[in-house]
Amino acid sequence: MNIQEFVGQSIGTWKSQRSAHHLAFGHFEAINSLIEIAEIALDDPALLALCELHNTDPSSIVAPFRMTWEGETDWDDDQKVKGTCVLAPVPASVKHGKLLRDQGYAEEMPAIGEYFFTDDDTFVLNTPYDRAAAEEKIWFVDSNVRCRVSLIKTSAGSGVVTASFSSEIRQT
Amino acid sequence: MNIQEFVGQSIGTWKSQRSAHHLAFGHFEAINSLIEIAEIALDDPALLALCELHNTDPSSIVAPFRMTWEGETDWDDDQKVKGTCVLAPVPASVKHGKLLRDQGYAEEMPAIGEYFFTDDDTFVLNTPYDRAAAEEKIWFVDSNVRCRVSLIKTSAGSGVVTASFSSEIRQT
Repeated sequence: MNIQEFVGQSIGTWKSQRSAHHLAFGHFEAINSLIEIAEIALDDPALLALCELHNTDPSSIVAPFRMTWEGETDWDDDQKVKGTCVLAPVPASVKHGKLLRDQGYAEEMPAIGEYFFTDDDTFVLNTPYDRAAAEEKIWFVDSNVRCRVSLIKTSAGSGVVTASFSSEIRQT
Repeated sequence: MNIQEFVGQSIGTWKSQRSAHHLAFGHFEAINSLIEIAEIALDDPALLALCELHNTDPSSIVAPFRMTWEGETDWDDDQKVKGTCVLAPVPASVKHGKLLRDQGYAEEMPAIGEYFFTDDDTFVLNTPYDRAAAEEKIWFVDSNVRCRVSLIKTSAGSGVVTASFSSEIRQT
């Protein structure tokens, strides 16, 4: 697996069932959402803006994409689970590189993560934020089922605050 | 990571928060349990019985252990989430081997799984059963936090029926 293949397999619309475990107080949160992952062009203005934000040469980007999600959580009926972000891989080798994004997962700010692929084709992404760090693992069970585990840790990286798991079924 | 280290890190009592996603109908199940993982001796009668059951030479076993769990699910108030089983690794190399058990995860029957470790120290276990197959991934975030993803597939291995995720916090 390389980043082009991984993004290529991810393109589409996914029905996501996500459970978040808030570890300190043992709470289970259930989130249902629809996720759309779409290729974007290498000259897309949003991508060029992202490159400028991160001071990155656009020619170093491979397989950029946009993720858009919308859903609902049982945590808070008024909470909107909705967003969109542009993601741009910058491979350093076949198996690892950086991932730029214009909206973070742990915090709503631009972020740069480091990714690599394990020998069983799991995509592992570590992203430091100001007050937290995120560790994500994403893998395909088959071409229509994707699993994702996301851990939010304190910024020192010592304690896991939230562990969440998504099972994602391809719709298109 | 090898199997001795993996079992060694697992010994203890763990508070487990588990979410099961029943994919066909989008149901979320929440399970709270306490899991105890304890070493057993190489001459433990339960281990010798397991070896006999699977026609395996006891001298090929490394780091056998007993798992005991007790908890509750929000799926069915009357359902007892409780059990115990003996597990016996039979390494074929440092990174892979077989795992014998006297009670299965997908079905309550003896089972033999095949395990391996990825290059980021995730323990991956594939276990075929009569009517289903289970794929499990277990990894340590640190010495006190363990994650486990379990997929139950149809026996043909084609469809994922249940995807579940446990976050486990060491108590002792």
